[in-house]
Amino acid sequence: MLFKNITILDENLDVKKNMYVGTTGEKITYISSEEPKAQDGNFGETYDGKGKLLMSGFYNIHAHSPMTLLRGYGEGLALQDWLTKKVFPFEDKLTPSAVYWGTLLAMAESIRFGIVSTSDMYYFCDDMARAIDESGAKDNIARGITNFSGTPFWDMTAAKEMKQLFETHDGSAGGRIKVDVSLHAEYTNDEQTARGIAEYAKEVGTSVHVHVSETKKEHEECKARHGGMTPVQFLNSTGLFDTPSIAAHCVWLEGEDFDILKEKNVTVASNPISNLKLASGVCNVPELLRRGINVGIGTDGPSSNNSLNFIEEMKVFAIASKERYGDPTAITTKEAIFAATAAGAKAQRRDDCGSLKKGNRADLIVIDLNQPHMHPVHDLTYNLVYSASGSDVVLTMSDGKVLYQNGEFKTIDLEKAVFEAERETAKILSQL
Amino acid sequence: MLFKNITILDENLDVKKNMYVGTTGEKITYISSEEPKAQDGNFGETYDGKGKLLMSGFYNIHAHSPMTLLRGYGEGLALQDWLTKKVFPFEDKLTPSAVYWGTLLAMAESIRFGIVSTSDMYYFCDDMARAIDESGAKDNIARGITNFSGTPFWDMTAAKEMKQLFETHDGSAGGRIKVDVSLHAEYTNDEQTARGIAEYAKEVGTSVHVHVSETKKEHEECKARHGGMTPVQFLNSTGLFDTPSIAAHCVWLEGEDFDILKEKNVTVASNPISNLKLASGVCNVPELLRRGINVGIGTDGPSSNNSLNFIEEMKVFAIASKERYGDPTAITTKEAIFAATAAGAKAQRRDDCGSLKKGNRADLIVIDLNQPHMHPVHDLTYNLVYSASGSDVVLTMSDGKVLYQNGEFKTIDLEKAVFEAERETAKILSQL
Repeated sequence: MLFKNITILDENLDVKKNMYVGTTGEKITYISSEEPKAQDGNFGETYDGKGKLLMSGFYNIHAHSPMTLLRGYGEGLALQDWLTKKVFPFEDKLTPSAVYWGTLLAMAESIRFGIVSTSDMYYFCDDMARAIDESGAKDNIARGITNFSGTPFWDMTAAKEMKQLFETHDGSAGGRIKVDVSLHAEYTNDEQTARGIAEYAKEVGTSVHVHVSETKKEHEECKARHGGMTPVQFLNSTGLFDTPSIAAHCVWLEGEDFDILKEKNVTVASNPISNLKLASGVCNVPELLRRGINVGIGTDGPSSNNSLNFIEEMKVFAIASKERYGDPTAITTKEAIFAATAAGAKAQRRDDCGSLKKGNRADLIVIDLNQPHMHPVHDLTYNLVYSASGSDVVLTMSDGKVLYQNGEFKTIDLEKAVFEAERETAKILSQL
Repeated sequence: MLFKNITILDENLDVKKNMYVGTTGEKITYISSEEPKAQDGNFGETYDGKGKLLMSGFYNIHAHSPMTLLRGYGEGLALQDWLTKKVFPFEDKLTPSAVYWGTLLAMAESIRFGIVSTSDMYYFCDDMARAIDESGAKDNIARGITNFSGTPFWDMTAAKEMKQLFETHDGSAGGRIKVDVSLHAEYTNDEQTARGIAEYAKEVGTSVHVHVSETKKEHEECKARHGGMTPVQFLNSTGLFDTPSIAAHCVWLEGEDFDILKEKNVTVASNPISNLKLASGVCNVPELLRRGINVGIGTDGPSSNNSLNFIEEMKVFAIASKERYGDPTAITTKEAIFAATAAGAKAQRRDDCGSLKKGNRADLIVIDLNQPHMHPVHDLTYNLVYSASGSDVVLTMSDGKVLYQNGEFKTIDLEKAVFEAERETAKILSQL
């Protein structure tokens, strides 16, 4: 595709007007203020970029995609009641087919809101992979592991599923699917399970995805259980951070935690909307950035958000950080956009993704600027972070393939996905 | 218009499916699950409501509409520098024409996001009224008054403008325009100015619109200036709350403040996005609601938000409240929708607006449910507050007249409004 006369956010997140961007196969092969000549290549279809912004797609680095089925389920209950009376019994009835349709619906929503790649933690991962493959989107899938029964790590079905998933799917769908490993959290596992996952991650060279210090209760109870060690300190002691990791939430970090995350190159996945909605607190993003820690953005599951609207997530990421830090200058719009794009791609080990750069994979989105809320323009990055609406995304492309354009889903039959996801939901509810 | 087979949020915010809603002139004249018969009236155009939600439009009860021109201007500066180095010098160069185009752009954005009526505090109010009248939207316009020079109240030009505005415009545009009066804030005025406004409001029987306890600094400095009296206590002592009032922000309320607001029937306008973005804090909405105080929602000016996306504002209103209160059950979706609709209409003295009720004015919006993020539906009010995107509004009607439908602005030439608003902005910037 050749994007003509389009405004872009380049690899430094600088705004450039009237640009030409060409993609060939999976890659971005041309970026210039000059129209390409015959010898620059054949880009196929031309896209009129007037009044449009072209930028990197978004990388959602903490999600539980199949939980679309639980969107708004058990709303208005206290956390413990919500989990034990609603979420867990519902999840207990999940089937491969329910997870497939839930994931496909999540992929439709993701690409509609400009998310090209997701880091997912869940189960029935083969079924997730099938939906993701078909959607054309990217995903780092991890089998979430929970084990406080004392069962030795490799005796668990979940551990075997983790291994089988990695062996079957890592690098599949032309590299769009990667497989990470996942300890659900410190508070849902014993030490040998954490060590088992850490060792396997090192052995195969993949990343770990883990919930860390989401709530004050979890954080304090960990310290009580482990001789004063915080979740970061405890998990680090098991070797879990010895390979590149994503630590989701990190709301209640303290003292040495910051040093460990920095030293171990851990990426923090901040989930600002979920954290506010569940009254968990606000991640201290400005402090993490000040220390040079990589920070990306996650939506968390649609049951605690309840959408995958990444422009909205980016706005709340920025404004919640400002309030948390007590300083309206605490985070810049470029820092927020970087977190939503390049920082996330890095955490997913997608080094050739996350920025509009020649040679990178063509993971691109187009934002419609012909909207009253996008004018006037003092600085386009301000309007993108603070004024844009999620639905201003009018085109989403992954690996050079258009997945969504102007209301049309190119890889997903939306009507069918909605129908089947609702049918699967009703089926489960009828059993409860 | 006759909305056929549409899902509605009725006057109790209950969801009803497959309904028929008819409007005649300015009013809602028919609501039933049965198709109207000939004797029920002639509603004109028919609207196919399949996959759509019909509900009351939104009432934005704290805004500074012409500040669209400053959207993103001076972003990233500390509060004091932003105000003194950017906002005030820019505002000093405003002209009637700049305010007219800025307001028209704000009205376009408002109706695009489902806002049918706004409570505005600004100046060049005649020019605002002209734009609002043309747009077909509603507005409670107030001339914001600032006076710490010691000038006697009625000697001020602003006081004369306030009076002239009330006499000329209150009830104009078929009642769509109302005129409120406004003390900008305690910290920008002396006591006799507050008393002058309070007396005038009582004399003519209108409402007061005032900033209250937005920042901790303002709140504490008021107490130091006025023998320990908080802004609420001080303003109450001047008689300012003797007529129905809108107190914007109310982030730092304490002790007796809550009792005064309740006793005086003051409406609190919470501006959650602006408050987070400027790192001012979070309004304790659940406590206000618990005490039976009327709470509406405001966007504040587009320079501190930076959009008029009311669905987004409603979501942040709910989730910020939950976090502030430390309880995910602190606010219900019906409470959030009520704040965005009926509570706001009440604060604007629009008793026949704000809910989908026979006999009320037809201030209605249609939300597109045919979106991946709006499924499945465990309860439609959850999806509306937490999953919808601002741009899911596909039709906005005020007093029975369609102002916006599917990307088309019926009363505003958007291209011209954007062009002129940008030209006025550039003109002002060239003088700075």
